[in-house]
Amino acid sequence: MEKEAIAKVFLRPESPFMTSPIAFPTLAEGELLVKIDFSTICTSDLHTFYGRRHSCSHSILGHEIIGTIAEMAAGGIKDYYGKNLAIGDRITWTIYAHDPNSNNAKKGYPQKSKGLYKYGHEQMNDAYQLNGGFASHCHLRKNTTLFKLPETLSNAEAAPLNCTHATISGALRLAGDLKNKTILINGVGMLGLSACAMAKEGGARKIWSQDIDPNKASYSQKFGAEKAFVFGEPELNTTIDREGGIDIVIETSGIPEAIENCLKLLSVGGTLILVGSVFPQRDLSINAEYMVRNLLSLKGLHNYRPEDLANAINFLEKVHLKYPFKELVGSSFDLENLDEAFATANTGKYYRIGIKP
Amino acid sequence: MEKEAIAKVFLRPESPFMTSPIAFPTLAEGELLVKIDFSTICTSDLHTFYGRRHSCSHSILGHEIIGTIAEMAAGGIKDYYGKNLAIGDRITWTIYAHDPNSNNAKKGYPQKSKGLYKYGHEQMNDAYQLNGGFASHCHLRKNTTLFKLPETLSNAEAAPLNCTHATISGALRLAGDLKNKTILINGVGMLGLSACAMAKEGGARKIWSQDIDPNKASYSQKFGAEKAFVFGEPELNTTIDREGGIDIVIETSGIPEAIENCLKLLSVGGTLILVGSVFPQRDLSINAEYMVRNLLSLKGLHNYRPEDLANAINFLEKVHLKYPFKELVGSSFDLENLDEAFATANTGKYYRIGIKP
Repeated sequence: MEKEAIAKVFLRPESPFMTSPIAFPTLAEGELLVKIDFSTICTSDLHTFYGRRHSCSHSILGHEIIGTIAEMAAGGIKDYYGKNLAIGDRITWTIYAHDPNSNNAKKGYPQKSKGLYKYGHEQMNDAYQLNGGFASHCHLRKNTTLFKLPETLSNAEAAPLNCTHATISGALRLAGDLKNKTILINGVGMLGLSACAMAKEGGARKIWSQDIDPNKASYSQKFGAEKAFVFGEPELNTTIDREGGIDIVIETSGIPEAIENCLKLLSVGGTLILVGSVFPQRDLSINAEYMVRNLLSLKGLHNYRPEDLANAINFLEKVHLKYPFKELVGSSFDLENLDEAFATANTGKYYRIGIKP
Repeated sequence: MEKEAIAKVFLRPESPFMTSPIAFPTLAEGELLVKIDFSTICTSDLHTFYGRRHSCSHSILGHEIIGTIAEMAAGGIKDYYGKNLAIGDRITWTIYAHDPNSNNAKKGYPQKSKGLYKYGHEQMNDAYQLNGGFASHCHLRKNTTLFKLPETLSNAEAAPLNCTHATISGALRLAGDLKNKTILINGVGMLGLSACAMAKEGGARKIWSQDIDPNKASYSQKFGAEKAFVFGEPELNTTIDREGGIDIVIETSGIPEAIENCLKLLSVGGTLILVGSVFPQRDLSINAEYMVRNLLSLKGLHNYRPEDLANAINFLEKVHLKYPFKELVGSSFDLENLDEAFATANTGKYYRIGIKP
């Protein structure tokens, strides 16, 4: 049995990843060692690698990960549903380990617990080195919420579950009941495509999408968008005039101009959910009187609750053949070619690039 | 029996009200004529009269009104609970008549129905002249939601129900479960005092208040505020550092600087409810990344649903002796002295000025 993992270590923006052998960790109570089956490069990995936001180093990037349990601490480990897990189980997990006794966890915000530990985002240290997706193995800490993956899901379909799909599941929880609602998905990258399909399955009456890129807008129709609009063109406004307004916006672009524009598209009582604004940006200009007189809501969401990941897995298991989720990983690279994989991902031509250790 | 009402007609900002005799209307199906028992001058009446916002004329201002049924259309009329009303019943009513079949009403926003008719805000016309509170009588249209008043409530306590207390009842509906929550009431005029008491009765763990006026802040402690802070002084921030942050803000001042400040006081997952921003104002500067990373919500509310008024009446009936609601009408004037009443109200010395026809 191998006793050493291989990791691609992030040193600094735009510098080649450093290939490092790392000894297997000694597992503490409640911990796991997972042999990574597949990871995908998330847009936030690109933000980090290309210096658009600060992240610590040395670290191992990658948080959209799935893997097979290689080793478990004594005492065994249970999944989200309370079932025992076994060596050889293929699993996904919350992108964070959290303290369930912290104030924020008790309030329903485990993703903001004190001492939160996020895979793909932490500085490596002696005890926890294998903490990201771009490696052969990942060392999972206690209080990481674990889920056995349905066999019907391919590795490429399943890898984005614990970031993209779980976040959108959380966003739709904030949006509330979708019945008879018209929903606009603004920005149809990976998050937006997930939102189109999840809103469709959630019973929304009309699902519209909008993107600055006509091809992306159009492609979202394969994921449940009934109409696709190009940002800045007049069709969306004329459609609103003809068919009535928008009740919910899921805003994934994070761009202030887009957010301000979307807020003005909402009907009375409308809600805009912010999920894309995870990078430094100028302040929004929002008129409070307009929000009051139109009974508007604006809600921010970052990451998600374990229940959101549970719902995302159930969703994907049910519909992965109905929508072309398997097309979204446009190309896959071996771990040793991670630099090339990042360069390819950064062209923006693919929704996701996969990494196979 | 008298066949003529007396009204004080609003002509233009800061011009004396015109005393006008008005013939009793012929009641259409579902309509009522109410002999007004008491009205109070709301801050928005002052905004209109002093030209801080536009309102139509000729009109009869005043929407915080209670009265006794003087005449009913044939066929009888039921209250909110489906019980028959009778001549001589003392009632309050939603500040609006709405079309229950309109889209917005069906979506849960009756206060934004097409063709909405708001007492104290409408141009007088041949069919509907007696449409405000500063008159001897008020002509209630079909689809105004009616409530018989509890006998234990005095006229002065009951008059602000259908504006102040019902709006706060709606705001707390948007805030959700208050258990274990710390709530800040920002601005403790009439709306804010109502919010302190309603949050206290609603089970909030800590109720804090903030006002620019130290006397107003201090007075809110009689209405359930545990701690009162003066805007701009450092005590609130040191208290947050010591006791933990704020989960909910009910923002009644409507002032952009105050709103921006309150948003920064919220804990992770916090919600700010905007109810005071009902006048033209500069845009807010709000950072979307901050809202996302802190999972914040911002919700606007204007007016309320009939159920909110129902809850407000039940609330006031239960607690009107526990908190000094009867002190809030600082002085009362006869209808003929309405000009003097407005001048007195505009000094800002009193929470409400009452008008007795």
